[in-house]
Amino acid sequence: MPIINIKITKEGVTPAQKQALIKGATQLMVDVLDKAPQVTFVVIEEVETDDWGIGFDQVSMLRQQNLSPK
Amino acid sequence: MPIINIKITKEGVTPAQKQALIKGATQLMVDVLDKAPQVTFVVIEEVETDDWGIGFDQVSMLRQQNLSPK
Amino acid sequence: MPIINIKITKEGVTPAQKQALIKGATQLMVDVLDKAPQVTFVVIEEVETDDWGIGFDQVSMLRQQNLSPK
Amino acid sequence: MPIINIKITKEGVTPAQKQALIKGATQLMVDVLDKAPQVTFVVIEEVETDDWGIGFDQVSMLRQQNLSPK
Amino acid sequence: MPIINIKITKEGVTPAQKQALIKGATQLMVDVLDKAPQVTFVVIEEVETDDWGIGFDQVSMLRQQNLSPK
Amino acid sequence: MPIINIKITKEGVTPAQKQALIKGATQLMVDVLDKAPQVTFVVIEEVETDDWGIGFDQVSMLRQQNLSPK
Repeated sequence: MPIINIKITKEGVTPAQKQALIKGATQLMVDVLDKAPQVTFVVIEEVETDDWGIGFDQVSMLRQQNLSPK
Repeated sequence: MPIINIKITKEGVTPAQKQALIKGATQLMVDVLDKAPQVTFVVIEEVETDDWGIGFDQVSMLRQQNLSPK
Repeated sequence: MPIINIKITKEGVTPAQKQALIKGATQLMVDVLDKAPQVTFVVIEEVETDDWGIGFDQVSMLRQQNLSPK
Repeated sequence: MPIINIKITKEGVTPAQKQALIKGATQLMVDVLDKAPQVTFVVIEEVETDDWGIGFDQVSMLRQQNLSPK
Repeated sequence: MPIINIKITKEGVTPAQKQALIKGATQLMVDVLDKAPQVTFVVIEEVETDDWGIGFDQVSMLRQQNLSPK
Repeated sequence: MPIINIKITKEGVTPAQKQALIKGATQLMVDVLDKAPQVTFVVIEEVETDDWGIGFDQVSMLRQQNLSPK
């Protein structure tokens, strides 16, 4: 019964990509720990780039200057 | 000074239900652990059904097929 | 399928109290939101009083001076 | 490589204030623990005042009655 | 720069399995979202079975009665 | 009433450093957002280096090879 929380910046992630993240994360729990999928939760949290900071700066600003990795 | 975080799918929870969750969770801390309500935080997090996965699939999809419990 | 996370200071909470917290939090989800208990997770997180701060100070220090509410 | 998560009520925090929170939190990690800024994450989470409870009540309600501290 | 938090019950997960979880979760971010591994954090949180509840009960108790899925 | 959660690797952080983190984080909320210290929570979470991954690997392994920044 794992809970996998995936926190990412809100930058156009599609429903199909979200389904792939959920499927992949659940499969990882099955493969590595033999967990039961029916009680494996995956929760995706998208964060505005204004609200995420790295190296002193907001990702929104770093993106404008093409300075930060995805 | 507990912090209770309630993560639920975003499916029409009303303000009155939120007040009931906050009241009930706080009362639980008072009853079981004798905690002080004035420093008991309850935070509700509503998650889009596209962003919540169980059993390999997004809840949004499972809901369309009436497949997943509330 | 709610996830309820209960963060409390590590101050002698007994297994019976933990069972009461889990039961009460699950019942709250059933009563207020008609959620399915079999996919309702409750996770308790105990935090050392050195690691929890309120009003600029560690709870461990405030406890020594009988200064902070439970 | 710290992760600092700042959870606050959604009450008009400006982009400049968010930048100041990110800068200040990162500087704190550098000053106290000599952490590397380029792998220090700061994530700000704004919570609706309906979704945050203290002392049995929603902050939204307490704000209407000027009852709760910021 | 995703943050993946994996919360699992504390039931004998080996260092090798932890490495496999970290590798697999990072690879998932690279494959699905083309994220940069050097700023992809994976954090594993092991929770005592007394502290995790499902269906009203502590996992520790359910395990004794062989009642709950992994 | 902010909640600041500071997640760091478990690598010998002293009680005095924890007090400095709590003091500094609280002061940041007062300075930037004029928040009330008496309802400002700071919670420090120390994570084993086996349980924290960056760039596909566990920090414990990277530390052995002097490969990862603090």
